[in-house]
Amino acid sequence: MLTKKPVHEFVEEVASALPAPGGGSVSALVGALGAALASMVCRLTIGKKKYLDVQHDMEVTLARAEELRLRLTDLVEKDTTAFQAVMNAFTLPKETEEQKHLRSVAIQEATKGAAIVPLEVMSHCEQAIGLVHTVADKGNVNSITDAGVAALMINAACVGAALNVRINLGTLQDHHFVQTTQERIEVILKSVQGTATAILQTVEQKLS
Amino acid sequence: MLTKKPVHEFVEEVASALPAPGGGSVSALVGALGAALASMVCRLTIGKKKYLDVQHDMEVTLARAEELRLRLTDLVEKDTTAFQAVMNAFTLPKETEEQKHLRSVAIQEATKGAAIVPLEVMSHCEQAIGLVHTVADKGNVNSITDAGVAALMINAACVGAALNVRINLGTLQDHHFVQTTQERIEVILKSVQGTATAILQTVEQKLS
Repeated sequence: MLTKKPVHEFVEEVASALPAPGGGSVSALVGALGAALASMVCRLTIGKKKYLDVQHDMEVTLARAEELRLRLTDLVEKDTTAFQAVMNAFTLPKETEEQKHLRSVAIQEATKGAAIVPLEVMSHCEQAIGLVHTVADKGNVNSITDAGVAALMINAACVGAALNVRINLGTLQDHHFVQTTQERIEVILKSVQGTATAILQTVEQKLS
Repeated sequence: MLTKKPVHEFVEEVASALPAPGGGSVSALVGALGAALASMVCRLTIGKKKYLDVQHDMEVTLARAEELRLRLTDLVEKDTTAFQAVMNAFTLPKETEEQKHLRSVAIQEATKGAAIVPLEVMSHCEQAIGLVHTVADKGNVNSITDAGVAALMINAACVGAALNVRINLGTLQDHHFVQTTQERIEVILKSVQGTATAILQTVEQKLS
């Protein structure tokens, strides 16, 4: 399992000639790192006298950030598995008409699966960036750069995941799925990028 | 050593109540992941008939990307060590005037060290984004989203590292160092963000 490997080995495996883990798994991992930073800022705020009035907010935010961290970490593996399923479908026999048909159906099915995983990454990033907004506004000001890095990472993960959804949509014949997914991508990207920009403005104010 | 830990454990440690590893180490790791994706695209291009004319470019780019990947991976640990050195300096005794003076000198020294590590991350990101530009322009078009994710990650890593340089500059008394570093940050950020934007335009063109 990819996330059980040592960090340096995982990075090395990304660099290898195998096409997966690639940009999809990296986006999921970077989203998980962003959620992890949000959790850290919550934990560095909870219990501090100066922040007693936001204690409840931070506890709720921490529970949600931890859930997203775990889900995004799981998606690192899932993205690579979904990519391999597409590759496997391409290796199916294509001698007879029936084989050609079955192969085509299998490729379509696997490609849809490979689009859904980064779409899930995007959806989790949308939730995670809202949590980072809370920690940047109300969390321990000593950790303000960590909130900033969290926003940067979650935004990059979301835009990266969007590229991975789109490349898979390109070959899908289910036009309803393609259209609704494209619309969903646009909505999430706008929301995440807008929130990330607002967070970075807060970070700038608190940093100077 | 941080990068010898399993990926899921590293992410968990970022999320923990310990302030390090935090945004600095995360920025270094995300930079390393960006460099790794550049290496992967090179490897998926080298040896392919269709890309014989860029073979030499890809080999040179791969060698440089691999060096940056390793250096950025090393900086994950170094950022946490540099942060801990600042924390340790703060625990020095401050009873006598001499102790106060020594403590103050130690804090300044350690804080400068903690600024230099993310500055190195930025400098490596500046080099890495140039390599990503090459792979996005000339590399295997099937890996174009990986080049896009590489650009997103290296840009986020660089901006994240800049926040970590700046928070340390805030408490430094060496005004010459502060000023030259601030100027260096601005130059790198402008360069990296400009190149990342150009790469993402290339990705859009090739994706549609």
